[in-house]
Amino acid sequence: MKTRIILLFFFFYFAFSFAKTTPTFPFSTIINRPNGLSASSAKAADNHKLYDTKYFTQILDHFTFTPQSYHTFQQRYLINDRYWGGAKNMAPIFVYMGNEGDIEWFTQNTGFMFDIAPHFNALLVFIEHRFYGKSVPFGGEKEAKSSSKTLGYLSSTQVLADYATLIIDLKKNLTATDSPVVVFGGSYGGMLAAWFRLKYPHVTIGALASSAPILYFENITSPYAFSDVITQDFRSESENCYKVIKSSWQFIEDTAKQAGGPEILEKSFRICKNNISADSLENWLYTAYAYTAMTDYPTAANFLNPLPPYPVKQMCKAIDDPRHGSDILEKLYAAVNIFYNYTGEVNCFDPEKPLEVLSRIGVQWRWQTCTEIIIPVGASSKDSIFPASEWNYSENAKFCKNAFNIEPRPNWITTEFGAHNIKRVLKRFGSNIIFFNGLRDPWSSGGVLENISKSIVAIVAKEGAHHVDLRFSTKEDPKWLKDVRRKEVKIIHKWISQYYHK
Amino acid sequence: MKTRIILLFFFFYFAFSFAKTTPTFPFSTIINRPNGLSASSAKAADNHKLYDTKYFTQILDHFTFTPQSYHTFQQRYLINDRYWGGAKNMAPIFVYMGNEGDIEWFTQNTGFMFDIAPHFNALLVFIEHRFYGKSVPFGGEKEAKSSSKTLGYLSSTQVLADYATLIIDLKKNLTATDSPVVVFGGSYGGMLAAWFRLKYPHVTIGALASSAPILYFENITSPYAFSDVITQDFRSESENCYKVIKSSWQFIEDTAKQAGGPEILEKSFRICKNNISADSLENWLYTAYAYTAMTDYPTAANFLNPLPPYPVKQMCKAIDDPRHGSDILEKLYAAVNIFYNYTGEVNCFDPEKPLEVLSRIGVQWRWQTCTEIIIPVGASSKDSIFPASEWNYSENAKFCKNAFNIEPRPNWITTEFGAHNIKRVLKRFGSNIIFFNGLRDPWSSGGVLENISKSIVAIVAKEGAHHVDLRFSTKEDPKWLKDVRRKEVKIIHKWISQYYHK
Repeated sequence: MKTRIILLFFFFYFAFSFAKTTPTFPFSTIINRPNGLSASSAKAADNHKLYDTKYFTQILDHFTFTPQSYHTFQQRYLINDRYWGGAKNMAPIFVYMGNEGDIEWFTQNTGFMFDIAPHFNALLVFIEHRFYGKSVPFGGEKEAKSSSKTLGYLSSTQVLADYATLIIDLKKNLTATDSPVVVFGGSYGGMLAAWFRLKYPHVTIGALASSAPILYFENITSPYAFSDVITQDFRSESENCYKVIKSSWQFIEDTAKQAGGPEILEKSFRICKNNISADSLENWLYTAYAYTAMTDYPTAANFLNPLPPYPVKQMCKAIDDPRHGSDILEKLYAAVNIFYNYTGEVNCFDPEKPLEVLSRIGVQWRWQTCTEIIIPVGASSKDSIFPASEWNYSENAKFCKNAFNIEPRPNWITTEFGAHNIKRVLKRFGSNIIFFNGLRDPWSSGGVLENISKSIVAIVAKEGAHHVDLRFSTKEDPKWLKDVRRKEVKIIHKWISQYYHK
Repeated sequence: MKTRIILLFFFFYFAFSFAKTTPTFPFSTIINRPNGLSASSAKAADNHKLYDTKYFTQILDHFTFTPQSYHTFQQRYLINDRYWGGAKNMAPIFVYMGNEGDIEWFTQNTGFMFDIAPHFNALLVFIEHRFYGKSVPFGGEKEAKSSSKTLGYLSSTQVLADYATLIIDLKKNLTATDSPVVVFGGSYGGMLAAWFRLKYPHVTIGALASSAPILYFENITSPYAFSDVITQDFRSESENCYKVIKSSWQFIEDTAKQAGGPEILEKSFRICKNNISADSLENWLYTAYAYTAMTDYPTAANFLNPLPPYPVKQMCKAIDDPRHGSDILEKLYAAVNIFYNYTGEVNCFDPEKPLEVLSRIGVQWRWQTCTEIIIPVGASSKDSIFPASEWNYSENAKFCKNAFNIEPRPNWITTEFGAHNIKRVLKRFGSNIIFFNGLRDPWSSGGVLENISKSIVAIVAKEGAHHVDLRFSTKEDPKWLKDVRRKEVKIIHKWISQYYHK
């Protein structure tokens, strides 16, 4: 099998070289509230609105003073004061650091904050990330996305300064300047939460950074690490499952080259249209495996598509099912059907059409991965379940040049936020950060997996997937997940107690 | 005496309301090397060049990705590797965070770093602040200063990112990525050093922030505090001295209003030209008192003008000198003559002409004080040696509107860097900062004067003036000053040892 160049496109519909491009929407939880909510969260959801919607006039550019920098836009945030103990009691404020998407999605799917708010008498605030959802500068999405002159203001440092500005102003307006603020975030939002605690300790007393691959920059984490975790996820279920998928890529390409081969592939995978390339088919399969690995949750969930509990196990079961005999294509179809069609409602598929939620945030996130969020994911090692490949920075840069006429700044994130030698740097600096990671999650390979100091701690769940801790609790949650959340609550409790003590 | 509105203009030649405007060039040390250097520094200075000059291609805007942001400029830095133990030994790198002026001035006058470099086998690097000296974007000073479109890129956050970028690149080029970096700065440069440690702990292991009034923002420090220290400086020398100066303002104004009064003033103060207003005369006097208080050093020094040891004492001696009888103007003249004409070379004065070093940096620093460095200095309390007055933000904002068509962002510095409740915030966050302050220095009123934690410490010298610790050592240095420097060296030593230990 030939080794192909892998580009870092988080959105698969931008991929043009091979299936192994990084999965779309890599960081976000799009999990609808499952059945079987805990009593408190169910109450919140059923009897009351989850939140009120507000807007804040935000400055376009915090770090310069050009005339352009003074432009403003309306930044959306959602607020729930049902559980709040009030400013007089200095009751805490829990702030979700919005990531790459509509804040309503995240809010509706970050049940952990709703679940624990009553215990802490906490005010809940969810702030939308600039350039996403309804928090778009320049008068509208079309204008904001029109060129690098406008998209240029979409950057992580501006976002963190937005959050600091909004939180300080909100506290002033609530006369709650003495209320401690704890920040939460998952995935890229988890990065933002950790960075926010490091850069704005005067605004937040602590951060829960869930599944935040802050070490997946420059040469700190192996480019192979991401796909190695996916490999391990499937291999841990069954060696046969791993082997079938690993051998399938060559098989598909060989089939595609045969006379009548494309038709065989289209029929096998219930593709709606003709003339689908092997590449887009492989992309489509890759997406299913990668996202299923990321969301290998212990309970039923709905990430991009609805999935059963432990979906990787289900996929491997399908592949290992003796009813499929030795028909590789039938095995694969049965597996990916779990990701793309768990409800059984879809009659045929279009591998070239992105999942709907992704298409809404595509350009912005692509911009971010073309400017500063340069994560060398996409390469695969020899033993990988995907074809062996190398990470190629210059191909990535070429794509960004074509797409945006922009040059990436691959060293910027580590210059601004650090990451090299994180243990040495933060051992005697900073405090109050929880890094949660589930080891089934491919992004855990770029996460902080060891305690750094007494109060910058790692919580690692061997069985956990992508920010599983932030989801609404359910009756079916396994003990390890309950333990993780209990630990997190205990630590946050300590931060707040220490704050009050002073 | 009527109370006048005081505006925050650090440069007296922009003042139009009254003498009590904040002194020009408030933060900078323009101290030429005095006679009587210590052995090591004398050696460095006499036998060798103090430094080599280099340039680094710096990006215009670190925090956005607009086409404009990619512009670059040549940033000057000075380097001295004479004492360096080398990359292989992970010998330390001492970096001076350039402040508002030509880096050569600062380097030639930050003798402390040269004095201690041999002890630490340290590499010395002095980085010039963007928009000053030779580190000017947009092709030239005229272009850079032309409007807010260009000056807009002059901001403290950009400067800190410049320093991080340059240091990381320099270490790579020297294959010295494992060498610990300690940063130094005085006054505004001391703020930068402290902020740099807080924001870039992955780039520096510790900061010596000398005379950095990081608490002189928003409503944290009283607007009266600055002039109260000046009052105390003069009053501590003699009650009569204080009373003479305090009463002189009204006397000058009364005299100016009399027939023949202006001529009396001009003659008394040896003014070269006619029709000088009482305001500019008072400005000129204020400048002398304020700068003399700031640089009330125990040894002869040359700040803006040459001064004797303990110049405040000398001024009060002149005022108290019985030879002047009760002639207030003669007393004042004798006093300010120490500041303006200690060498005796000047025959007459022009109060409307700024000191030469100030005119070179005027616009840039004015810009900074009109955008983010909004320090409410300029008000005077009832007991002040200056006329009572109130800090007036809106007058300041009006001036900035006129001068630059810009609106200040008075809350930005505290939003970005904090300062409120600094003890509570940094007690369990951050480490390795020394805040030095001399209590004779009016800027000490906005400094950190108490230990915050075990490793964020305050060194306070009752007899000290503006960043006196950073000056070249001399044989005449008093014991307290030697003790201060010894303490600083000991602490820096500890930081480095801890670093190596890991």
